[in-house]
Amino acid sequence: MSKGRITRLRALVVPDEYVLITNPVNIQYLSGYSGSNGLLLSTPDVTYLFTDTRYEIQSAQECFDVEVRILRADLLTEALKLVTEGKLTIEARHATVAQLEQINQASSGLTVTSSSGLIEQLRVCKDDEEVELITQACNISIAALEQLSQELRPGLTEREIAMNLEHLMMQLGAQDKGFASIVATGSNTAIPHHQPTSRAVEKGDLIKIDFGAKVAGYHSDCTRVFVAGSPSAWQLELHETVRQCQEVTRESVRSGVSCAEVDTVARAFMDKRNIGHLFTHGLGHGVGLEIHEDPFFSRQSATTIEANTVVTVEPGAYISELGGVRIEDTVLVTEDGYVDLTNFTYDLVTIG
Amino acid sequence: MSKGRITRLRALVVPDEYVLITNPVNIQYLSGYSGSNGLLLSTPDVTYLFTDTRYEIQSAQECFDVEVRILRADLLTEALKLVTEGKLTIEARHATVAQLEQINQASSGLTVTSSSGLIEQLRVCKDDEEVELITQACNISIAALEQLSQELRPGLTEREIAMNLEHLMMQLGAQDKGFASIVATGSNTAIPHHQPTSRAVEKGDLIKIDFGAKVAGYHSDCTRVFVAGSPSAWQLELHETVRQCQEVTRESVRSGVSCAEVDTVARAFMDKRNIGHLFTHGLGHGVGLEIHEDPFFSRQSATTIEANTVVTVEPGAYISELGGVRIEDTVLVTEDGYVDLTNFTYDLVTIG
Repeated sequence: MSKGRITRLRALVVPDEYVLITNPVNIQYLSGYSGSNGLLLSTPDVTYLFTDTRYEIQSAQECFDVEVRILRADLLTEALKLVTEGKLTIEARHATVAQLEQINQASSGLTVTSSSGLIEQLRVCKDDEEVELITQACNISIAALEQLSQELRPGLTEREIAMNLEHLMMQLGAQDKGFASIVATGSNTAIPHHQPTSRAVEKGDLIKIDFGAKVAGYHSDCTRVFVAGSPSAWQLELHETVRQCQEVTRESVRSGVSCAEVDTVARAFMDKRNIGHLFTHGLGHGVGLEIHEDPFFSRQSATTIEANTVVTVEPGAYISELGGVRIEDTVLVTEDGYVDLTNFTYDLVTIG
Repeated sequence: MSKGRITRLRALVVPDEYVLITNPVNIQYLSGYSGSNGLLLSTPDVTYLFTDTRYEIQSAQECFDVEVRILRADLLTEALKLVTEGKLTIEARHATVAQLEQINQASSGLTVTSSSGLIEQLRVCKDDEEVELITQACNISIAALEQLSQELRPGLTEREIAMNLEHLMMQLGAQDKGFASIVATGSNTAIPHHQPTSRAVEKGDLIKIDFGAKVAGYHSDCTRVFVAGSPSAWQLELHETVRQCQEVTRESVRSGVSCAEVDTVARAFMDKRNIGHLFTHGLGHGVGLEIHEDPFFSRQSATTIEANTVVTVEPGAYISELGGVRIEDTVLVTEDGYVDLTNFTYDLVTIG
C-alpha cells in the first residue's frame, strides 16, 4: 500500500518535472530506505531509489513506493542517464557543489532549479505511522527515565548517568539513542547544552537530564531535573517557575496558533517573573526523522502550527555558575490542543 | 602549541587564497571544534571558526589554531563579510548549492573555485596524537570483545549481543560506538553488512561481529568470528582460509606499497583457493575521524600507502544462505611494515 508521500511531492511540482533527492533523511521519508549510500529520483512516472550492492537486502526490506535500482557504478551518473532534458529540481540545502557540477556536465539539455525545503515541508505533519513511531520512542524514553531515577544517587558521574540511561533505552527496544544525552550536575546545570563529564553527583546538586530515543528513525526529546537530597529555596523556586512556564506554554499549543504566539506565552511568563534574561535558548522545535526539524518556535516565525505536528516545549532558566532548570516535553499537536507524549512527573524529584 | 594542520593547508594554496571549510569532520580536524553548527574560514593571516552561542563553552574548550567568533547571525553571511575580493576555495563535495548561491550573491568580487579532497588528503597521514586516539579506540574495542566473548552463549539475540558490546565499550571509556555494530548469527553471517535482528544464537552457529569504538572523534574497526559449540568442517575450513588470507595480506602492508598491490595479494590468495567469487566487498579503508576515509584498497587505486596511515585489512568470504566469515584489523602503517592495533586472537573461538 502506498504511503502517499511521493503523491504529495508530485502535487508540489509541475507534471513533467524531475526531482533529485540527495538528503538521506528525505530519502528515508519518501522511500523507507535508511542506508548510507542512496539517491532518489522522482520522474513523472516512476520514482527510483538508487543504491549499491551492499544495500541490496536492506533496500528490499525497507523500501516502499519506489523502484529500487542496485548499481555497481556511480549512482548520480546512472540516475542522470534517465534525465536528459526538461526541468530537474535539486535540493539547494543538501545537493553538493560537486553534484551540481556533475549534473551540469552530464546534461546540457536540462534546466536545473534548486529548491529549499521541498521535502521538509511535507515532513511537518506526521501520518499515523509516524505518530506511532514517535510515541514508541517517547514511551521508551520515559520508561527508561523511570528506571534510571530509582538508581540515581550521589557518586554517579554525569557520564555514567548518560551511559546507563542510554543502555536502558536500548534494553527497552530503542534502535539507538536519539542524540548524545545532556546530563549536567551541580553548577554544570547552568550550561544549557552541557556535555557529560566525570563530575560526580554531590548532595544538594540539581541533575538535569535532556535525552531521547530513536525508533525506526523517529525521535523523542525530553528534559527533567532531579535533586540529590533536600532542595534549597532557590532550587525549588527556579524549578517551580520553569515548571509553571512549561505548563502554561504547553497548554497554549493547538492547531492554528502561530509559533510566534506560543513563543510569546513563554517569554512573557518569564519576563513577568523577571527572569526572561535567564531563558537564553529557543522554546522548541519539530521532532521526527530529525531531532530538530521544522517548525521552530520563535518570535520571528511566520509559521502556524498544524494538527499532527510533533513539537517540543522546553523553556529553561540558567543562573551562571550556580545552576539551571529546563523542562521539556515532546507533544503531538491536535485540532483543539495537544497530547503530551512524554508525560513524566513534573515535580522536582529527590533522589539518593 | 600549534598542531600544524592549518600550516599544511596553507602550503597547498596560493598565499592570498581564502578557504571555506563546511564539512564538520574537516572543521574538527583543523580546529578541534566538534559541534554541529560551524564554519571555518582560512584567510592569509588568520583562520576563523564561526559558531553560535550554544557552542561558546564547547568551542573555547576544544579549539586550537583558530580565532573563534561566536555569532547570533547566519554564520556564512558573517564569514563572507571578511572575504570581499580575491580567490575563495570551497569544498566541492561538502559545500551545498544553497551555500554557493549565497556566496555568489554576497560577493561579486570573488573568484570561487571548488576543490575536491583538499582537507581529506591532509588527514591521510596521522600525527602522534591521532595515532594515540585511534590506539585508545582499538584498545577499548578489543577489551570489550574479550569481556563479551566470555558472556556469549546460545539464546542471546543478535540485537542483545550488539547492545551489550556497545555498552561494554562505553564502560571502558569510549565516547560512543564507532558505528552501528554488525552482529550476524547462523545463516545471517552470509550477509556482509547484516543489521542485528532478534534472531538468537543456536548451537552450531557462526557469530560474526564487526564493530568499533569512538574516542575523541577517532574510530576503530575490527571483525572477528566465533562459533557456538563445535565447529563443522566447512566452518573450520572457511575460517582458516579467510584467516590465512587476512594474515598474508596484512603482512604485505608497508609504506611505499600501492593500494592496488595489497588488494591483489588478497584477491590472488582467494582466487588460488577458488573462492575469489565469495569475496564480494572491498578489502579495506582508511580509519580516522571517519570510519571510512582515504585511502581505499582497490584494484583500480593509484594510491601508494604512506607511513602513519591507519587502514583496515578485512577480507571475507560468504556462502549464500549458509554462512560467511570476515576477519578485520585496524593497522598502523610504518616504514617497514605495520602495527596491528586490534591484536585479538585469530582463532575460531568456541563459545557457550
